[in-house]
Amino acid sequence: MSKKLVVAIAALEDSHRARIAAAAEKHGFEVQFFNSDVAALPALNDAEIVFGQSATLAKNSPRLRWLCTPTVGVNQFLGADAFVSPNAVLTNSSGAYGVTIAEHVVMITLEMLRRQLEYNAIVRRREWVRNLPMRSIKNSRIALLGTGDIGRECAIRLRAFGPASLTGVNRSGRNPRELFDQAIPQDQLDSVLPQTDILIISLPGTAETFHMLDARRLDLLSDGALVVNVGRGTVIDQQALEKELRAGRLCAALDVFEQEPVPADDPLWDCPNLLMAPHVAGNMTLPYTRDRIVELFLEDFENYCAGKPLARQVDLRKGY
Amino acid sequence: MSKKLVVAIAALEDSHRARIAAAAEKHGFEVQFFNSDVAALPALNDAEIVFGQSATLAKNSPRLRWLCTPTVGVNQFLGADAFVSPNAVLTNSSGAYGVTIAEHVVMITLEMLRRQLEYNAIVRRREWVRNLPMRSIKNSRIALLGTGDIGRECAIRLRAFGPASLTGVNRSGRNPRELFDQAIPQDQLDSVLPQTDILIISLPGTAETFHMLDARRLDLLSDGALVVNVGRGTVIDQQALEKELRAGRLCAALDVFEQEPVPADDPLWDCPNLLMAPHVAGNMTLPYTRDRIVELFLEDFENYCAGKPLARQVDLRKGY
Repeated sequence: MSKKLVVAIAALEDSHRARIAAAAEKHGFEVQFFNSDVAALPALNDAEIVFGQSATLAKNSPRLRWLCTPTVGVNQFLGADAFVSPNAVLTNSSGAYGVTIAEHVVMITLEMLRRQLEYNAIVRRREWVRNLPMRSIKNSRIALLGTGDIGRECAIRLRAFGPASLTGVNRSGRNPRELFDQAIPQDQLDSVLPQTDILIISLPGTAETFHMLDARRLDLLSDGALVVNVGRGTVIDQQALEKELRAGRLCAALDVFEQEPVPADDPLWDCPNLLMAPHVAGNMTLPYTRDRIVELFLEDFENYCAGKPLARQVDLRKGY
Repeated sequence: MSKKLVVAIAALEDSHRARIAAAAEKHGFEVQFFNSDVAALPALNDAEIVFGQSATLAKNSPRLRWLCTPTVGVNQFLGADAFVSPNAVLTNSSGAYGVTIAEHVVMITLEMLRRQLEYNAIVRRREWVRNLPMRSIKNSRIALLGTGDIGRECAIRLRAFGPASLTGVNRSGRNPRELFDQAIPQDQLDSVLPQTDILIISLPGTAETFHMLDARRLDLLSDGALVVNVGRGTVIDQQALEKELRAGRLCAALDVFEQEPVPADDPLWDCPNLLMAPHVAGNMTLPYTRDRIVELFLEDFENYCAGKPLARQVDLRKGY
């Protein structure tokens, strides 16, 4: 029986499938493509490798040795019974989303600073109002909580706008590729917040990051500060943030939320000083992202077939 | 009788007035500040220098030697009878708006590429739709028609997003500060358009630029190209553009229009594939812009008092 690779990612294009099929053939793998996890179910029984993001895939692959998810977040694979196979390792697609999420971050940051939601409403009313006071990335003090692929791609773009400072905040206090003016370890976050005009959060949703931005830390932010979250919603105490937004003390642009989808009756939908997006900063709707996901998978597929360590293996205890 | 400087700019802050007053005193000028051109009228009779943007100021200052407008566009001062004084020179505030307009350009470019008007409407309806196909600045071919302060500041920021190419198009074909991958003289514009995914226009409104983007040239643009105009509305044949937008062949983000304000019954308000803004990319609502306007005026005020040439003198025949 030949070794089997199951790919269950609807967003892939024919060119991607062709590249994966060629690599599989080269290494003696049979490959099957599906557009949903349910359609893939019958093929999972003897799958050695699975490329897909659904928890169902891990739960129904008894011979699985490697699952690669096209996402960065892996919360769906963290439960004690997430994998039915005892020998499976998990990799994610960290590195595929920095470009699209960084474009989203720059866009929503400028939309908030330049009052664009209000201007768009003015245009819908066919009015000609031009005098709303604006702010600028230029000369703003920016802190990036999380300096992985997303934080770094944000820093590269934001640098070109001439901010007063770019401060990276991470676990180690290391300054990756010197992209930040300074890097601060996470346990000194409190000292950074009062000096921050724009806070950009790209942290994963783990026990360690849960409500890292709680009421006390939000209160440390300087008046009028903009909070941008493209990591996971659980990093912010959403109720505490909403209170600050309704008081007009802070403003925010959120792509992620404590509960997704945000319930239709959630008061957040009506909250002022807030730009919401339905978790679209980093999904697979951009061709560049899909290309990168496939490239990263193929890179680790070569590693796997050569018996080398996988480049993007997730530590299932840490959760990233 | 002492020499007189009249300042008629409502948007100035007290700190700006104080700086201007100090410079005036140093050079033996009496200075008067007004919040409108009408309020300034009685003071204009013996004004030697006027700092303001209204055509009324030029028409009512018989002893005027220098008028500095806080704008870049100078169309209001171009008529044969614009200045009642025979000896007046005009300067503009070119260099003050590049930062704010470039931020606007990046914002509206990303809003169009990332379907943000549609996502904002989805959020207003409290829906959770995430699958709209997106595009990216990354790997896009960008042409900048106009490589002055605005085009250059745009190029600096867009470069950080990793475009496939940045092509500057201007009168000389010179590549200012090597900010562009290549620079092309304006008379070769036709050869650039078919290779362009994003066209950014920052040209002044002159006889030479009138309808430079006519139906024929718009037709040369590649399918799906995005047209961004933050210069003057007359550069584009608006009717021809609207036809392309309604056909879904092009998309556009316009801050300027052939007629401003856009009339309430203009069909453009309902046009698909279009993001409109009420000429707000480069007005005086950003503190940084106001600071720059005052700095540039004071620089030329020193030049004026030293008998040196003014740095931003406008050629009234060329119109910029």
